[in-house]
Amino acid sequence: MKSVGRTLMNNLLTASFCGTIFPVNPKHRKVCGCQCYPLIGAIRQKIDLAIIATPAKTVPAIIAECVEAKVSSAIIISAGFREEGAEGIEREEQILFHSRGRLRVVGPNCLGIMRPSVGLNATFARGMALPGRVAFISQSGAMCTAMLDWSLREKIGFSAFVSIGSMIDVGWAEMLEYFGRDPETESILIYMESIGDANAFLQAAKQVTRTKPIILLKAGRSAQSAQAAISHTGSLAGNDEVFSTAMQSAHILRVDTISELFHMADYLAKQPLPQGSNLTMISNAGGPSVIATDALVEMGGSLTSLEAKTTRALDRLLSPHRSHNPVDLLGDASAEKFEKAIQIATMDDKSDGILAILAPQDMTDPTETAQRLQPYRLTRQPIMASWMGAGTVEKGRERLNQYQIPQFEFPDMAARVFAMLWKYVEARSERKQDKMPQFRDVLFAVVERIIAQAREEKRTILDEYESKKILEAYGIKAVRTEIVENASAAVKHARKIGFPVVLKVYSRTISHKNKAGGVKLDLRDESSVIEAFEAIQKAVDAKHFSGVTVQPMVDSGGIELICGSTTDEQFGPVIMFGFGGSLVEVINDRALALPPLSRNAARRLIEKTKIYQALSNKTDLKRLEKVLMRFSSLILAHPSIKELDINPLVAVKNHFIALDARIVLQDDLSISLRK
Amino acid sequence: MKSVGRTLMNNLLTASFCGTIFPVNPKHRKVCGCQCYPLIGAIRQKIDLAIIATPAKTVPAIIAECVEAKVSSAIIISAGFREEGAEGIEREEQILFHSRGRLRVVGPNCLGIMRPSVGLNATFARGMALPGRVAFISQSGAMCTAMLDWSLREKIGFSAFVSIGSMIDVGWAEMLEYFGRDPETESILIYMESIGDANAFLQAAKQVTRTKPIILLKAGRSAQSAQAAISHTGSLAGNDEVFSTAMQSAHILRVDTISELFHMADYLAKQPLPQGSNLTMISNAGGPSVIATDALVEMGGSLTSLEAKTTRALDRLLSPHRSHNPVDLLGDASAEKFEKAIQIATMDDKSDGILAILAPQDMTDPTETAQRLQPYRLTRQPIMASWMGAGTVEKGRERLNQYQIPQFEFPDMAARVFAMLWKYVEARSERKQDKMPQFRDVLFAVVERIIAQAREEKRTILDEYESKKILEAYGIKAVRTEIVENASAAVKHARKIGFPVVLKVYSRTISHKNKAGGVKLDLRDESSVIEAFEAIQKAVDAKHFSGVTVQPMVDSGGIELICGSTTDEQFGPVIMFGFGGSLVEVINDRALALPPLSRNAARRLIEKTKIYQALSNKTDLKRLEKVLMRFSSLILAHPSIKELDINPLVAVKNHFIALDARIVLQDDLSISLRK
Repeated sequence: MKSVGRTLMNNLLTASFCGTIFPVNPKHRKVCGCQCYPLIGAIRQKIDLAIIATPAKTVPAIIAECVEAKVSSAIIISAGFREEGAEGIEREEQILFHSRGRLRVVGPNCLGIMRPSVGLNATFARGMALPGRVAFISQSGAMCTAMLDWSLREKIGFSAFVSIGSMIDVGWAEMLEYFGRDPETESILIYMESIGDANAFLQAAKQVTRTKPIILLKAGRSAQSAQAAISHTGSLAGNDEVFSTAMQSAHILRVDTISELFHMADYLAKQPLPQGSNLTMISNAGGPSVIATDALVEMGGSLTSLEAKTTRALDRLLSPHRSHNPVDLLGDASAEKFEKAIQIATMDDKSDGILAILAPQDMTDPTETAQRLQPYRLTRQPIMASWMGAGTVEKGRERLNQYQIPQFEFPDMAARVFAMLWKYVEARSERKQDKMPQFRDVLFAVVERIIAQAREEKRTILDEYESKKILEAYGIKAVRTEIVENASAAVKHARKIGFPVVLKVYSRTISHKNKAGGVKLDLRDESSVIEAFEAIQKAVDAKHFSGVTVQPMVDSGGIELICGSTTDEQFGPVIMFGFGGSLVEVINDRALALPPLSRNAARRLIEKTKIYQALSNKTDLKRLEKVLMRFSSLILAHPSIKELDINPLVAVKNHFIALDARIVLQDDLSISLRK
Repeated sequence: MKSVGRTLMNNLLTASFCGTIFPVNPKHRKVCGCQCYPLIGAIRQKIDLAIIATPAKTVPAIIAECVEAKVSSAIIISAGFREEGAEGIEREEQILFHSRGRLRVVGPNCLGIMRPSVGLNATFARGMALPGRVAFISQSGAMCTAMLDWSLREKIGFSAFVSIGSMIDVGWAEMLEYFGRDPETESILIYMESIGDANAFLQAAKQVTRTKPIILLKAGRSAQSAQAAISHTGSLAGNDEVFSTAMQSAHILRVDTISELFHMADYLAKQPLPQGSNLTMISNAGGPSVIATDALVEMGGSLTSLEAKTTRALDRLLSPHRSHNPVDLLGDASAEKFEKAIQIATMDDKSDGILAILAPQDMTDPTETAQRLQPYRLTRQPIMASWMGAGTVEKGRERLNQYQIPQFEFPDMAARVFAMLWKYVEARSERKQDKMPQFRDVLFAVVERIIAQAREEKRTILDEYESKKILEAYGIKAVRTEIVENASAAVKHARKIGFPVVLKVYSRTISHKNKAGGVKLDLRDESSVIEAFEAIQKAVDAKHFSGVTVQPMVDSGGIELICGSTTDEQFGPVIMFGFGGSLVEVINDRALALPPLSRNAARRLIEKTKIYQALSNKTDLKRLEKVLMRFSSLILAHPSIKELDINPLVAVKNHFIALDARIVLQDDLSISLRK
């Protein structure tokens, strides 16, 4: 009967680890030929890392022992904690009670950790990862073992292989910080079920992605699977759209399928990041290369427009009737012809990457052709291959893996991976010019005063008047709004503002003014204003009526926008921008972003909507970007604001003006929790 | 040196074909031990099929010889036709000149055809496909050879394996008709670069998909790859969105990646179609099964809510803290436990399919576990497996292939395939209740008269008045519209219609009335009508002004729809429905469908838009369906109509009314071409 501990011990001993291993078990005097200690304290040497694989109920005491023996790190492999209910949670708390501030814990309920470069295999997986430059961190042990087995065939090397488990202590942020600094690690792959401390994760990730790509596969996109994840790790998955937005804000590349995650590992372990969007395909397989082109273009890559010298050289080699890129070698391509075409393509200065596609045709030698690729495995351009099929191409695939040329069963996946990584590189270089705006003209105190007064009155909803004052304090223009209590005051102000005007009910209790019959538009003369005042007063229940507001009628020119924010439980404030007005929910054309917004981020937020096309024709987008950046500063500076809607926001002669606004405050409780 | 002919001959001889093979070659007296004939006429036996692999320039004469010898079918393997320009096209014409009406041709420029059940391998591929029930038809030889090699490892059987080539004679429609009737074929997989005769293809496909699924991968989704396809097969790819719509109209399942196409083959060759959406996952791999759930739900499948008896039985077997579905066996699951869980799941009446997921964990025996699945390969429920990893699971995968349990490298692909096929089955059963509407109240002659008059006047654009008359002839309500030539007539009609009214310029030359200052809305009294008439007359150039129309002002309640049609070069009329009004292009919320529209198809068209949500709350969708069906009848019955826009179409008290409409006719030339 195999035990986890036995497998662990075997793994530690056979991976040629450069340190010393001390088995601890009171029941044995030796384990696998090594002297065994009854308890940690008996070892009498400095211990760097304890690896614990005993029954859950024994773990808290063992952690206490470790602390006693001045061990500073531990991996708890054992399961039987929060996933088993109250008793398990109690055990976790005991562990934290003993360890806090003295010993860092990875796990529990994990497979362990590998560091191939020093021969450390502290897992109970079968086999040891190859050394390399990709760090893989996974919240699922099964994803680790599947990736490991796959990587051994594909010859994918790892700087580290981490099963992170339930994260009672060491979480994502610490892992990212570590691998961000780790000189062996050039990219990080993550399989995530729950994010834990979302803010810490994002902060760490933002730093890391300045230099190293992070690829993430997140479980729980659908409601049904979020439930599966709950039972699996005992933790909650957040709203998926907000999650995606948050990942984008940290420049993390989110993938949707296991296949993409694995193939990203393959690419990143073997080839450099693309330095441009242009891919050159060379193939004996016309059809598959057309499909690969589809995938490439869909993900934002492009086919190289080959240089004239390249085309001339290829013309000498190939039929003039071929397609130019994908370079079609036709079905009877010899290994030699394949190599020559690749050699020519590697010298094209416009090309940023090469994808060789081979289908097992009768005249083709897949193995010989693979061998011919070896010299091109390390040129300026990253190179990928797709030897399609199975038995016939197996030897060729082995060769490609040996040469560290990533090999894809299907070429469209190669194109997809290339284009996705290029998008990361492109965004990374854009980021270098990204400065966060500083607005020195904001009136912080004005906002806090309005909020304090509402608090005093035990209100969490600010009225339109107050909300607009707050916007103006941050330099966001709002339409002039006067509160009046009777019809004659309304007429007076209407005259001052100039006709036509709008009358809206002024109320701190009505949230849908229009539905309540509390809005009258386009009033062109004094008698209409009086009529409108009376109609509103009549329509609205007296206890909700505190007067009306008089505002100029602004012509939106048909385009009404919405700019809003809400507070996500995990990620805090989230900004929404899109098509607004009364049809906002019907049209549902909007995009999300996390603050703070740089100018680039504001632009990208605008560009993600469909209304963008119409805006870019009609208005000065730079001004709109500025409104969004000011909005972002406002909600970040005042965490009491739970929700803020500007709807509609309209463009008038290139200025953006809030016609209506509403702010909802956090209730006191949640503020104190956030602090 | 291998030649194509030699490989062909070898393939024909080694596949144990039950007929006789006669090599024909004037230069040899025997080929591969068979007597060789100098020409076809010398054989003196009835020849069923000629397979031609000679240089292109010799092919026309050989076809003539075949016709002479009363051969009725030929496969032309040879390349060197339209893909090589004018000379090649000339050769194709010669072939057709000889063969038309006497001999059917598959190809040229193809790999050939396999019919495994009778041992016919008339290709120059390496190896022979296994016999089975999937027909694969591909326009790329490379896609064939890749699929073949892959299928031999995965043990995927085919009823036929067809490389269709340039389709100078036999095209998609004939292939579909054949395999639709072929009792050996239960499903059809297509790799397509160009559709050829789109109408014939769709008609044939519609018939086939009543009983057999068609899965299609189409090259050329992106503009760049459409270009690659042009060079590759010398034929044109159409607009991709219309293409997708057309495929949906024929109930074809379109996939986007080569991986999906191949895995569909794997599933369809081995398991029955799903009979419901509910999948039960059983796994020792929590993470991967959560990701598979995401994929399942995203594609319209669902996790089975297991029956109480199933849950009880699983409770006896497994930890009570496990997730219920995906059924998590935990990392230490034995082969026995795996089997028992699957046995229990196969007896659940709510479950429509089973997916077993295995990651190579230390305590797991992938091969033994695979063996345990054998008895469940043919239960009521289709079964799939995903043995993740590589070397460790290889033997297990071989077993699964042997048992004809489709095996997926990544489990999310399995979930995706299951859900997609279920959607096909679901739509197929919906279709059975689908009747095409017959409207007996339409006034066909009225429409043709209006069109004839426009033709006489050499116009291709019908004005608003004419367009509305045509709609009314098909029972689509349009707002009452009177043409007047002076202000006093406008007032008279306004009084008759009732205020408020709308005045629009009446012109056969202005297409954007609003932009030209030719529209005045919401006129509430006589003086406004007079003012508006004069303003329009002033704004519009006299040569474009033929009066104004007077119409009632209809309150759209904010929701303006568009219902339009356009004519696609390949697919003919295409219907568009969505959010309308003046922001139609900005909002861009619309969906497409091909006529004729059944009630279900009309409903699906509406449901594809975002505005649907708002409509379903406010209006009677059955009436809207009827409007769309009448619209569909109209454009089908009158092929002279090239474009028809109803914009806006608005709902007033549950009736749908066209407020404006415009019809553009085909120019005469294109009509005569269509007939």
